[in-house]
Amino acid sequence: MERISIEEAMRRLGEEVTIAGWVSRVRDIGNIKFILLRDITGEIQITLKPGEAEPSLWELKLGREDVISATGKVRASEIAHRGFEFIPERISILNRSKQPLPLDVSGHVKAELETRLNYRFMDLRTPRTKAIFRIQHELLVAFRRFLTERGYMEIQPPCIISSASEGGAELFRIPYFEREAYLAQSPQLYKQMCAISLERVYTVVPVWRAEKFNTPTHLNEVRQMDVEQAFADDEDVMRVLEETLAYMLENVKRRCSKELDTLGRTIKVPHLPLKRISYSEAIELLRSSEEEIRWGDDFTKSQETKLTSLVGEEAFFIKDWPSTLKPFYAMPHRDNPELVHAFDLIYGGIEVSSGTQRIHHPELLISQLKKKGLDPESFTHYIECFRYGAPPHAGWSIGLERLTMAVTGMSNIRECCMFPRDRDRLVP
Amino acid sequence: MERISIEEAMRRLGEEVTIAGWVSRVRDIGNIKFILLRDITGEIQITLKPGEAEPSLWELKLGREDVISATGKVRASEIAHRGFEFIPERISILNRSKQPLPLDVSGHVKAELETRLNYRFMDLRTPRTKAIFRIQHELLVAFRRFLTERGYMEIQPPCIISSASEGGAELFRIPYFEREAYLAQSPQLYKQMCAISLERVYTVVPVWRAEKFNTPTHLNEVRQMDVEQAFADDEDVMRVLEETLAYMLENVKRRCSKELDTLGRTIKVPHLPLKRISYSEAIELLRSSEEEIRWGDDFTKSQETKLTSLVGEEAFFIKDWPSTLKPFYAMPHRDNPELVHAFDLIYGGIEVSSGTQRIHHPELLISQLKKKGLDPESFTHYIECFRYGAPPHAGWSIGLERLTMAVTGMSNIRECCMFPRDRDRLVP
Repeated sequence: MERISIEEAMRRLGEEVTIAGWVSRVRDIGNIKFILLRDITGEIQITLKPGEAEPSLWELKLGREDVISATGKVRASEIAHRGFEFIPERISILNRSKQPLPLDVSGHVKAELETRLNYRFMDLRTPRTKAIFRIQHELLVAFRRFLTERGYMEIQPPCIISSASEGGAELFRIPYFEREAYLAQSPQLYKQMCAISLERVYTVVPVWRAEKFNTPTHLNEVRQMDVEQAFADDEDVMRVLEETLAYMLENVKRRCSKELDTLGRTIKVPHLPLKRISYSEAIELLRSSEEEIRWGDDFTKSQETKLTSLVGEEAFFIKDWPSTLKPFYAMPHRDNPELVHAFDLIYGGIEVSSGTQRIHHPELLISQLKKKGLDPESFTHYIECFRYGAPPHAGWSIGLERLTMAVTGMSNIRECCMFPRDRDRLVP
Repeated sequence: MERISIEEAMRRLGEEVTIAGWVSRVRDIGNIKFILLRDITGEIQITLKPGEAEPSLWELKLGREDVISATGKVRASEIAHRGFEFIPERISILNRSKQPLPLDVSGHVKAELETRLNYRFMDLRTPRTKAIFRIQHELLVAFRRFLTERGYMEIQPPCIISSASEGGAELFRIPYFEREAYLAQSPQLYKQMCAISLERVYTVVPVWRAEKFNTPTHLNEVRQMDVEQAFADDEDVMRVLEETLAYMLENVKRRCSKELDTLGRTIKVPHLPLKRISYSEAIELLRSSEEEIRWGDDFTKSQETKLTSLVGEEAFFIKDWPSTLKPFYAMPHRDNPELVHAFDLIYGGIEVSSGTQRIHHPELLISQLKKKGLDPESFTHYIECFRYGAPPHAGWSIGLERLTMAVTGMSNIRECCMFPRDRDRLVP
């Protein structure tokens, strides 16, 4: 199809061009007719004036969201939207839209989240939803570019696995031919296997948790942005994480100013290095502000938000966690094995990432598994990987939807997932 | 950890630096000892000479794949590997490797594919396997960069779906809370839903088929690189596809010369536009060279290879397929509804991509479903998407592992998938 974008048409004043898009609105004021046409790049007013427009064009009955193409010329106009109007010679209807619409695509009439998700393909046309996913796209582009340019290699961990990667419950089971298998709840083992050979790796993968409860911050299918690095400890990968985050935010700030405006957001790119507080300091801070929490407790969502204001930083690390709150593969401190080399990154009041230095010595791994009450026998394959030259390594994971929430200011994770999956929602 | 790569160390002659990696080989020739150390960037010889090396260093007993770090200086050497040697002041053992090794990491002693896949984390250290996945990485980087720079947006289709996307069998079923769900065999519907709003989209996603038979070219879990585009027909997206392919190949050629050497491959970037032959011409070509095939038959793998030599092009399109050989959503030709606007891209004798212009009119979709013997009732949700302003659209999909096979010259798809999944293999 010969067709240029509306944005490009506005740069080609006076030339005959063909544009195509969706009818946003039609106004008929007696002997003048205005058709507001929208494509992904913008909107332009198509003007039909007596004496100018072909008689056949007047007879077109157009409704909202009808898809049309129009051939004609753009000219400057003092009264039209954005200073341009389109004078058509021909208009073709490419597809009709059923009326009434289930959703107001202009975004002026607010719809319930349920309705919007049921008609996600239309919701994606609203400025707000388009802005959220444009920003998510830029986060992904920046994440991969930052790491690729620094020599990290993309890996493809499997999604169907034979056993629980972190010893946890809440796995989706799949009948797999004669056997049973699971959907991966994390690429943990696989990224470790790759890092102990390829040194620096990253991936963006879907992961699944069969959590039964629908909350505004949980989904059963989400995407993780993972990094794993050999010859590195927790401090090394915290530096990589903060640099990656800053790069992603800078990228969104620079490339998505229109989308940030639409969402009423401003982005402050944090100064590096980010503040680091220990888990114990975080507990102290909360307790000294009347919060009921004991050493060894995990932070609730509201405590994470409170900590953010107590620390006074948009983004900061909490490090040196109690071993009991982190997975078995977290490296214990040499001088105090109750603590592990683990960290969380809090951004915008939300835990967007966590990571650890991993245990690379098989014997230590076995003793940590036992301490957690797990049976090393069921982790034989995992442990085996560290017997043939496993360097020290560390890594982290960012929740893509969580990070999108923090950047766009959404409070429901479903806003930041194109096709969310929860206990009730499998469609579309 | 303070540590620089071996490659960087060789640029910092005479400075005190710390390197770290795997012991490839140890040679003890009386009063001189050579340790060949390897990291992801290269290899260097660590030399212990009498009078130069600390007495304690002599006592280190090192085996293959032991992980060590070494602090010292690089100096030029006329006899050492690549002209440099490393004179250590200190060596630390970071992790021991069990002996004997299950796999020769140097790649000199060939191992069975089964063994290599069982110890994939070590196989990834061999030059050949490392080269395959480095090339795969560059294909992915180039794919996304090419499209991102042209305004395509990355989308995140769901992996768990409520019904068969293409009406096919061979889906993995998952118990999903109170219901049943499936693993997506294609992001087809979802990329269409996104394209009819966001216009130009791409994604790289895992897809699953519960095919029972293990063949060298099939896996149960693979990755697709998908593009979908609105206001486009089959010819438009064929142009996008050939440009994307050429860009990917150029990128691999330019950035992976070492890896291509390792695999004994040369890459010819095809001249554009690629040759296009119709399905009917392809049938004629095969028949005129004594091949037994009738109009309406699909091509076998060996016929695809034969066609490649008959056409005389490394890469070419076969277009205008019989409707019976393509999915129900393929747009029929206006003048001959037995044919559809569909195409396959053959590269290196393998079908690496296929695509179609999609039907965007609900009524035509319903009649095509019926023609295929499918019940439009079970596609209500799919059809509904085209009732509210769906522009004409088209798209295609490249199999990531298939394309990697074609580029690297591998004949078993398991070579091109980090952690392959077939009926028998779920581990690692």
